[in-house]
Amino acid sequence: MITPPSTSARAAAVERTNALAKPLGSLGRLEEIGAWVAACQDQCPPRPLENVRAVIFAGDHGVTRSGVSAYPAEVTPAMVRAFVDGRAAMNVLARQHGAHVRVVDISVDDDLAGVPAEVTAHKIRRGCGAIDVEDAMTSAEAAEALHAGWAIAAAEAAAGADLLIVGDMGIGNTTPAAALIAAMLDLDADAVTGTGTGLDEEGRRAKAATIQRALDRAGERATVEDLLAGLGSPDIAAGVGFLAGAAEAGVPVIVDGLIATAEALLAERYAPGAAAWFVAGHRSTEPAQAYALSQLGLRPILDLEMRLGEGSGAMAAVPLVQSAIAILNDMALLSDLVPAAAEA
Amino acid sequence: MITPPSTSARAAAVERTNALAKPLGSLGRLEEIGAWVAACQDQCPPRPLENVRAVIFAGDHGVTRSGVSAYPAEVTPAMVRAFVDGRAAMNVLARQHGAHVRVVDISVDDDLAGVPAEVTAHKIRRGCGAIDVEDAMTSAEAAEALHAGWAIAAAEAAAGADLLIVGDMGIGNTTPAAALIAAMLDLDADAVTGTGTGLDEEGRRAKAATIQRALDRAGERATVEDLLAGLGSPDIAAGVGFLAGAAEAGVPVIVDGLIATAEALLAERYAPGAAAWFVAGHRSTEPAQAYALSQLGLRPILDLEMRLGEGSGAMAAVPLVQSAIAILNDMALLSDLVPAAAEA
Repeated sequence: MITPPSTSARAAAVERTNALAKPLGSLGRLEEIGAWVAACQDQCPPRPLENVRAVIFAGDHGVTRSGVSAYPAEVTPAMVRAFVDGRAAMNVLARQHGAHVRVVDISVDDDLAGVPAEVTAHKIRRGCGAIDVEDAMTSAEAAEALHAGWAIAAAEAAAGADLLIVGDMGIGNTTPAAALIAAMLDLDADAVTGTGTGLDEEGRRAKAATIQRALDRAGERATVEDLLAGLGSPDIAAGVGFLAGAAEAGVPVIVDGLIATAEALLAERYAPGAAAWFVAGHRSTEPAQAYALSQLGLRPILDLEMRLGEGSGAMAAVPLVQSAIAILNDMALLSDLVPAAAEA
Repeated sequence: MITPPSTSARAAAVERTNALAKPLGSLGRLEEIGAWVAACQDQCPPRPLENVRAVIFAGDHGVTRSGVSAYPAEVTPAMVRAFVDGRAAMNVLARQHGAHVRVVDISVDDDLAGVPAEVTAHKIRRGCGAIDVEDAMTSAEAAEALHAGWAIAAAEAAAGADLLIVGDMGIGNTTPAAALIAAMLDLDADAVTGTGTGLDEEGRRAKAATIQRALDRAGERATVEDLLAGLGSPDIAAGVGFLAGAAEAGVPVIVDGLIATAEALLAERYAPGAAAWFVAGHRSTEPAQAYALSQLGLRPILDLEMRLGEGSGAMAAVPLVQSAIAILNDMALLSDLVPAAAEA
């Protein structure tokens, strides 16, 4: 049961924003972001962020054997190690913004020997089925992954998170994400298929054909668990559970690119009302994300042609959320400066 | 004589970016911003920013008597005092990003009694002519304002600025800015006229008619000084000089919205090659800015429907420039993580 963000705090933020020493509406989207944070915190002006926490769900995808990615699956465990060592793009951006990054191995096709035990504590399985020829996993595994993600969100909330970010790592993961969006929104594979991390047009067409085979094979799936089992992956299921759990815990979330936006679409079905706790961090170059954003009514903060995943687009947007909060806290009111103008 | 940013440092940044632990091009515009900073610094990876400095040029505009703004001119001196007191949106954003803000009264129609002397030290005159019926100022005054702005840029560079921001404050200043862009690019008044800080459509049409009268009255103007005298204002002339001076000093600049982009267009004519030192901070809602950006070949970092001026859109973009620099400094190389993938 998702409690909606506070309408009274949102209204108070709008009223305060309109009284600030600036023309009405002139801070554009910073004004709506500030009101959203106030609503999520049930407080106006909202408290400055002190504990931004990102969780990256990592997993491998059997569908990479169909050549849907320009990179080999060996990159996934290598990147998990890079997150642990603090050397990936996501770590660099997180350090800039004073945020915490946690990587969780949900379904990496590697034992990740030597990696800290908390990284692999939630592992569901090694890799998953190739969705063009078989289900990614069982519905029971999907449920297990959903619950793992939900529990991780609850733990992050308990650790004091005042803003969460959901990120992803997994070579091939744009394929299940696009397939899930196509299935949820009844779209053709071609419409949702982009170039991922670096395909040419021939590669993109082959990827679209793979997605269409997966959609045809999986057919109708009634529940979120069945849909994730047929077209998703354990790591994506965990992301869905994480987003639903964050909303239930009342912690706002910046959603990243294609993978996270697919997760947000599923989280809204899994836990109706969850999306009110989400803001979109950035517009990805992947076409499927635009469909999912539109369905969710979310407009991205940034549009920088990023397509890295990891949560990097969401993390890059953190200072804009902080700006929106600072504006509501620290700006003068117009009535303080020019009493006559404020009355006009 | 403007020295171009370093092509070798830019090439080194592109090469390094392509070797980072991420798919080629996947950090999108952050990659090109990083290469631009490296080129401006003639160093790869570029140094982190330590001294971001913004200058707000303030002035009043006789054309406000034609009702081109929803706000009275009394707001201009009140906002100058707000900048000095650190209570405007620009100050709030600057504190967030550790940046310095300086406001300079070039042509405010007020004595600004009690404001620190350095604010008014460069004052050219009180207000300026209403451009729909007369020149804003003499060409000699325009030259004086250009030189004042240039000297201020040199002083900011001498103070150690590693990134400059140009901002504006002046009720009615979108009118001369749009008129200057129309004159430079041979556009109709209607095409360049937006709603400013809050006009309705009737107000916008009246403003367009005012701008068209100004364009018809001023006619062809051969030099930057004559153009600024006919259609600009002292504060805008100072911004033009500031941008040219920053480029001459080899300090990169984030250009703000409509006013600053008009200034950038004039700075490129005044000091050819200057625009290579500029990046656009944000896309304003004002239509004239888009024409000027296109002519300059600049693409804004942010698109948040902001239209406040002050330099606020440029200041909001500072953390993205910092992100681009951090990426080039701190990310692992792909060859460190997955030697085989890097060779593929």
